[in-house]
Amino acid sequence: MPDVGLLTPGADLAPGSSAAVTDDVAVLRAMLRAEAAWVRVVAKHRGTRAGDLDAIEVGTSIDAVVERLAGADDAALALATQLARESAAGGNPVIPLVAALREAAGPRLAPAVHAGLTSQDVLDTALVLVLREAAHDVVADLGRAAAAAARLAAEHRDRPALARTLAQAAVPTTLGARFAGWLQGLAAAQAFLAATADALPLAYGGAAGELSGIAELAEATGSVEGAADGDPFARVEFALVEAWGAELGLPVGPAPWHVTRTPVVRLASALAESCAALGKIANDVLQAVRPGVGELREPAAPGRGASSAMAHKRNPVLSVLVRRSAIAAPHLAAQVLAAAGLAVDERSDGAWHAEWPALQQLARHAIASAHAAAELLEGLEVDADAVARNLHDGLPGAGPAPDVDAATAVVDRVLDGFADGTRPDGTRPDGTSTEDT
Amino acid sequence: MPDVGLLTPGADLAPGSSAAVTDDVAVLRAMLRAEAAWVRVVAKHRGTRAGDLDAIEVGTSIDAVVERLAGADDAALALATQLARESAAGGNPVIPLVAALREAAGPRLAPAVHAGLTSQDVLDTALVLVLREAAHDVVADLGRAAAAAARLAAEHRDRPALARTLAQAAVPTTLGARFAGWLQGLAAAQAFLAATADALPLAYGGAAGELSGIAELAEATGSVEGAADGDPFARVEFALVEAWGAELGLPVGPAPWHVTRTPVVRLASALAESCAALGKIANDVLQAVRPGVGELREPAAPGRGASSAMAHKRNPVLSVLVRRSAIAAPHLAAQVLAAAGLAVDERSDGAWHAEWPALQQLARHAIASAHAAAELLEGLEVDADAVARNLHDGLPGAGPAPDVDAATAVVDRVLDGFADGTRPDGTRPDGTSTEDT
Amino acid sequence: MPDVGLLTPGADLAPGSSAAVTDDVAVLRAMLRAEAAWVRVVAKHRGTRAGDLDAIEVGTSIDAVVERLAGADDAALALATQLARESAAGGNPVIPLVAALREAAGPRLAPAVHAGLTSQDVLDTALVLVLREAAHDVVADLGRAAAAAARLAAEHRDRPALARTLAQAAVPTTLGARFAGWLQGLAAAQAFLAATADALPLAYGGAAGELSGIAELAEATGSVEGAADGDPFARVEFALVEAWGAELGLPVGPAPWHVTRTPVVRLASALAESCAALGKIANDVLQAVRPGVGELREPAAPGRGASSAMAHKRNPVLSVLVRRSAIAAPHLAAQVLAAAGLAVDERSDGAWHAEWPALQQLARHAIASAHAAAELLEGLEVDADAVARNLHDGLPGAGPAPDVDAATAVVDRVLDGFADGTRPDGTRPDGTSTEDT
Amino acid sequence: MPDVGLLTPGADLAPGSSAAVTDDVAVLRAMLRAEAAWVRVVAKHRGTRAGDLDAIEVGTSIDAVVERLAGADDAALALATQLARESAAGGNPVIPLVAALREAAGPRLAPAVHAGLTSQDVLDTALVLVLREAAHDVVADLGRAAAAAARLAAEHRDRPALARTLAQAAVPTTLGARFAGWLQGLAAAQAFLAATADALPLAYGGAAGELSGIAELAEATGSVEGAADGDPFARVEFALVEAWGAELGLPVGPAPWHVTRTPVVRLASALAESCAALGKIANDVLQAVRPGVGELREPAAPGRGASSAMAHKRNPVLSVLVRRSAIAAPHLAAQVLAAAGLAVDERSDGAWHAEWPALQQLARHAIASAHAAAELLEGLEVDADAVARNLHDGLPGAGPAPDVDAATAVVDRVLDGFADGTRPDGTRPDGTSTEDT
Repeated sequence: MPDVGLLTPGADLAPGSSAAVTDDVAVLRAMLRAEAAWVRVVAKHRGTRAGDLDAIEVGTSIDAVVERLAGADDAALALATQLARESAAGGNPVIPLVAALREAAGPRLAPAVHAGLTSQDVLDTALVLVLREAAHDVVADLGRAAAAAARLAAEHRDRPALARTLAQAAVPTTLGARFAGWLQGLAAAQAFLAATADALPLAYGGAAGELSGIAELAEATGSVEGAADGDPFARVEFALVEAWGAELGLPVGPAPWHVTRTPVVRLASALAESCAALGKIANDVLQAVRPGVGELREPAAPGRGASSAMAHKRNPVLSVLVRRSAIAAPHLAAQVLAAAGLAVDERSDGAWHAEWPALQQLARHAIASAHAAAELLEGLEVDADAVARNLHDGLPGAGPAPDVDAATAVVDRVLDGFADGTRPDGTRPDGTSTEDT
Repeated sequence: MPDVGLLTPGADLAPGSSAAVTDDVAVLRAMLRAEAAWVRVVAKHRGTRAGDLDAIEVGTSIDAVVERLAGADDAALALATQLARESAAGGNPVIPLVAALREAAGPRLAPAVHAGLTSQDVLDTALVLVLREAAHDVVADLGRAAAAAARLAAEHRDRPALARTLAQAAVPTTLGARFAGWLQGLAAAQAFLAATADALPLAYGGAAGELSGIAELAEATGSVEGAADGDPFARVEFALVEAWGAELGLPVGPAPWHVTRTPVVRLASALAESCAALGKIANDVLQAVRPGVGELREPAAPGRGASSAMAHKRNPVLSVLVRRSAIAAPHLAAQVLAAAGLAVDERSDGAWHAEWPALQQLARHAIASAHAAAELLEGLEVDADAVARNLHDGLPGAGPAPDVDAATAVVDRVLDGFADGTRPDGTRPDGTSTEDT
Repeated sequence: MPDVGLLTPGADLAPGSSAAVTDDVAVLRAMLRAEAAWVRVVAKHRGTRAGDLDAIEVGTSIDAVVERLAGADDAALALATQLARESAAGGNPVIPLVAALREAAGPRLAPAVHAGLTSQDVLDTALVLVLREAAHDVVADLGRAAAAAARLAAEHRDRPALARTLAQAAVPTTLGARFAGWLQGLAAAQAFLAATADALPLAYGGAAGELSGIAELAEATGSVEGAADGDPFARVEFALVEAWGAELGLPVGPAPWHVTRTPVVRLASALAESCAALGKIANDVLQAVRPGVGELREPAAPGRGASSAMAHKRNPVLSVLVRRSAIAAPHLAAQVLAAAGLAVDERSDGAWHAEWPALQQLARHAIASAHAAAELLEGLEVDADAVARNLHDGLPGAGPAPDVDAATAVVDRVLDGFADGTRPDGTRPDGTSTEDT
Repeated sequence: MPDVGLLTPGADLAPGSSAAVTDDVAVLRAMLRAEAAWVRVVAKHRGTRAGDLDAIEVGTSIDAVVERLAGADDAALALATQLARESAAGGNPVIPLVAALREAAGPRLAPAVHAGLTSQDVLDTALVLVLREAAHDVVADLGRAAAAAARLAAEHRDRPALARTLAQAAVPTTLGARFAGWLQGLAAAQAFLAATADALPLAYGGAAGELSGIAELAEATGSVEGAADGDPFARVEFALVEAWGAELGLPVGPAPWHVTRTPVVRLASALAESCAALGKIANDVLQAVRPGVGELREPAAPGRGASSAMAHKRNPVLSVLVRRSAIAAPHLAAQVLAAAGLAVDERSDGAWHAEWPALQQLARHAIASAHAAAELLEGLEVDADAVARNLHDGLPGAGPAPDVDAATAVVDRVLDGFADGTRPDGTRPDGTSTEDT
């Protein structure tokens, strides 16, 4: 029976859930999207140059085939189940997918299906499509979280609070300074993830990253008009590849990355960095809600934080799930890194395969974590009395109004550097990129 | 939409697949099995002592409720989907499960449902049930693989072969010595995993591992007959817990392990060790099937090893998938270890939650890996000519019949120590435990 | 310049420090010990059988050579530095070590040095010697920590305390129950580590695990008296290997483990499990010493816990360092596991090398962690008033004397199962192995 | 006794070795450099404004003190050893360092030493200084490796070679295409690491990241001339911090990063990505040098690749060490990531400490790996006959002159995008940033 996310609360896979953009059906549909786009590209070349296929008709036909195969949820899930099972024979799900797609396409379209491609072109491109969407979701939620952190920092910029170091009372700081630290981490992670996701490139290369199958196909269909002889960027196979990238909205690098795993390594690093930045926030909240502290409260929601054994409890569930993902993510990122360092030949014999589930799980953790954190920060409640009381109890000598001007200035500097932040005086930030931080 | 294992070939989740013992529905059913067993235990105490519930009737009723909720696959999947979604509110799926179970049980049975328990009791016990079954599957496949390795070692015990060290031709060894090394690793991993799985204990403890809810329940129903005053093992709450363990066939430790994570840490270590032992075999096969080597061939099967781009290829898919899991497993085991080292208080605020998906994924890798390896070894083909040719080419000075008596003796020693091995002379092994190795 | 442990407080490498058993000079001396023992074994065979070497004289000579090379600390450090540098050429330090040892041994002894061995025999055996000693240190400190935890559990077995789950006040438990949980984890980790360390075997095998060099040597020196023909255990090369193991006090397995990495994988798992069990304790202490909690205090010592910025602070340094190692250890254990799963051929081309620093670092973390935890637990101070106050504040409805009988019974059950524990009533524990848990 | 790198061949710590920039003495000297720079900054403010200290005299004095403490190697090592030992008491080496520095500075200078700082300011800044230098070394060696890969790719751009996928013969490609893939990975890793290293910021913040100690100091010495009231960037404490950064050549971010670990997380990701890119190269070389393949040979050097057991062998040691580091690095990077996600409060109670050894080890692996790879690639030998023979044997039907035009075009595209590459036709590359790749 399929998995539904029972063991990753906050990342369930029910249709419409935030984690559903990474589910197996999403991967299946992305593979079909990649295959269909390729058929359109091939047909267009044939259509406009050799005249033996009508590109528009082909495009319509292949879209209809894909719709029939995986348009409805039931059909898509059934096909994914079938491919999952059949993938054991060849080691990846593209092999049975191509067979199914060719059969569904019928004899006229079938030759254009997957023509000149290899499984890795399609699976890596599908993962890129899914991961880019996942990353964009995370970027959006990091943005919500950052905006909320900025608001909190501005609101409490000069509120004296107890700083704790090595689990002990340290000195007075401001509550805003703690929130500004959250904002720093969020903004940096968001910028890195956004840039990395947008750079995720099309995967292409054919059988062994040598494009011979694509070149062969291209030769059969004419050359790029006006291309200078000897210009490696002007060869037809690359024109086809560029067209494929344009169909899918993906950048096209100069060469295949079948065994040069920079794109997925970089993305894994960015996702893990996001989970770590979110983890800091969760850890602070989990300390702040403890009995005897009580400085913060998670936003209330019907049913949230209930306990199966203790009716009086209100558990800090959002923070718990964010922390959960901060604990998990480094290991998943390391799995991707390890696989990249074991790449070999023109297709890796196991290292490639080890990346897939790690990327899927890692994307889910980032999605669940960013989503929970956005909700957490947007509704986070501050108990000002508890903040004041804990400062007094922790540092009796600090007095009721300690000098926290420098800590307040830290907050202002961070807010100044945060593009969307609300400065306490109501002026606009100066647009300094958070990357300059 | 749910996941079906599309990105973990060899570990698909179609009903009947080997990995299905770890799927979310299996976890759901294990949770229900644990809850139902507890209802029976509670009722039995009430029934035999206080007379207000008929234990047999209760048992029949709760079984019917569970059957109605999750007996049919469709119903089970729908319930799992619902719980996955609802688990975000409380951070674990037991909270909504208890609500669903109580509602389905009706007003008379409901009070006995989950009485005195906490979510962690049920989720950890369910994971133990699932992991134990998964481990037993792995142990069985390791046994198949070990028996096949022993047969191969015996068959080729004195066949001269090229030993390679640091990727270079080294000296003559025997093919049997390489196979005997595989056997050693398999036997050790199997013994460790079997012992660890059998020791996986019931999880119990109530709200905070203090059993007060269970004790309260117990007090309401009388004490254990004949128990000496002050004997901590004879208190009623422990009698109930012992009865629960007996219902589920699980050992009962002296105390709760909510935040003493030895059982799952040890299991994760054993599963990862199994994946590592299997990885060595896959790595050797992947070298042996390479062009220019050709000493071994994976067993043929219809469709296996096909390529989406190259019709002439026969890819070593079984080995690829085993190697894949050897690359992945250490990271998943580390996730469990890390979570254990972050345990805190009477229930961990995120570290507990980080264990669940790692254990599920790790068990799947072990299942897929052991299953593929058993199939690989049972049908592994040796090209004796290639073995001889590579030895000659790699070490021209070694001559046609190098002295490999010592390497042959190594094989015999290993086979002697392998309980189920077939000694080359047909005698039975001496029964020395492989643990003595 | 060499490292002295500046970045691993608690695991400095000054002579006499607890971590020094794992330092590079310790590894160097263990390599020399292994080489010298082998020379003695070889000479004894030659001496008693072929008469061409006087075994006793050889033994004295080689010991003198080793003493000259590495007896004094300065000389040992200089040699280690030289070998470290020279090891880049061959990829391991044994190659230059053998050259240095042969030169120092002089022409008569030199032929017996490393005769029939390979680098891996010596390096793996040296690591085993070092790791065994390190593990024994850890086992001893785990024992101290467990005894102290047992004493604490007995002393506070029925002291009501606030249980916290998911960072929230839960229900009353006893302080003893928390301590009993610590004891459980310690005792299980100790038993596993002790058994694993004692099973660490001699590494042997010669050039490619085929023993041909050793067999050749053996043939030149006669056969084992009375050995039945065809008995693989009676061959001379194995007699030599057994004698080597006896010299070093190491068990001898049936076959080489050059590429069957069970022994080091299992040890890494055991060391990491120890760090995790210790981590739980540190996490609890770090919560308990926080401002607003104050239930526990680390033992005071001159200078301990000082801050470079805040004179008033007393930082919980022991717990910080234990937690540090619990965070680090899973990654180091995973490195060993990953390397094992990448083993290939008759000697791994990088995977073997990746184990060494991970094992060294992991052993240090375990040593530092166990040592700090033993000191922590032996002097841990309980503030009974704070414990009572926090229970009252966290659960105002619990009243001054909540029923904690069941939690108290948990403590008694754990103490009963802890061999060296002191039962609160002064009776002896029943000797039930903690392994039965 | 100290470590000398005995277990990390290629990363020994002898003075002058490439890894020595990361050794404990380097860290010690960086800490002293940071402390001395701060004393100069403080004195300059006092000197130019309050007149009670002569800044130039102070600068000379503190430099002399530092020179006396750690100028000579022996003295530095002895001090590092002392601090390593004493660091157990406070959990970090800065605490005893400050005591030693103050004592050495004498009563007049002592008050300026570490004034307003906290341990973390100094240790993090020292790590940044060390890591930046290490990263620059790696960047330089990646550059050497990339230039050599570009030369190899250009030289063999159209040489037909056997592509292998999933360990099987696939189709013809060119040797240049394989080399171009190496170049891609190297160039991307180099660019990321260089940018990340240059962005590593000064660590500052005082006791709890609130700068109160620095502000107090600043108030005592006057304000920044001309600073507008209320401009958070113009406050004196930040002017002091800016001056400190300028002294050390480090960028200064808007706020402390004590518990916002982006800088070290990003650097760890970049170092690990470098190790992974290098690993791909090593894996390919290790396959190419195997018996029966022989397409490549590592550069010869006296003594390199020797075996302690087999005189005839020439082991591919450079590749072995590079692969070793590719296996190790992901785990060390994950340790840094995990620690970042566990950051809490205003100073982490263990998570901070867990970063230090991981960063040190990771930097060493990257240094050793990049250095070995540069040497490997600069001297890599191609056996053109073996390349041709393997293509023919692997794909008999491919014929002597397969069409590899598309693969050749891939090479040209990559070289075009590589800023320092040599295009086969001798023209200059078009300057396309390698980041565009």
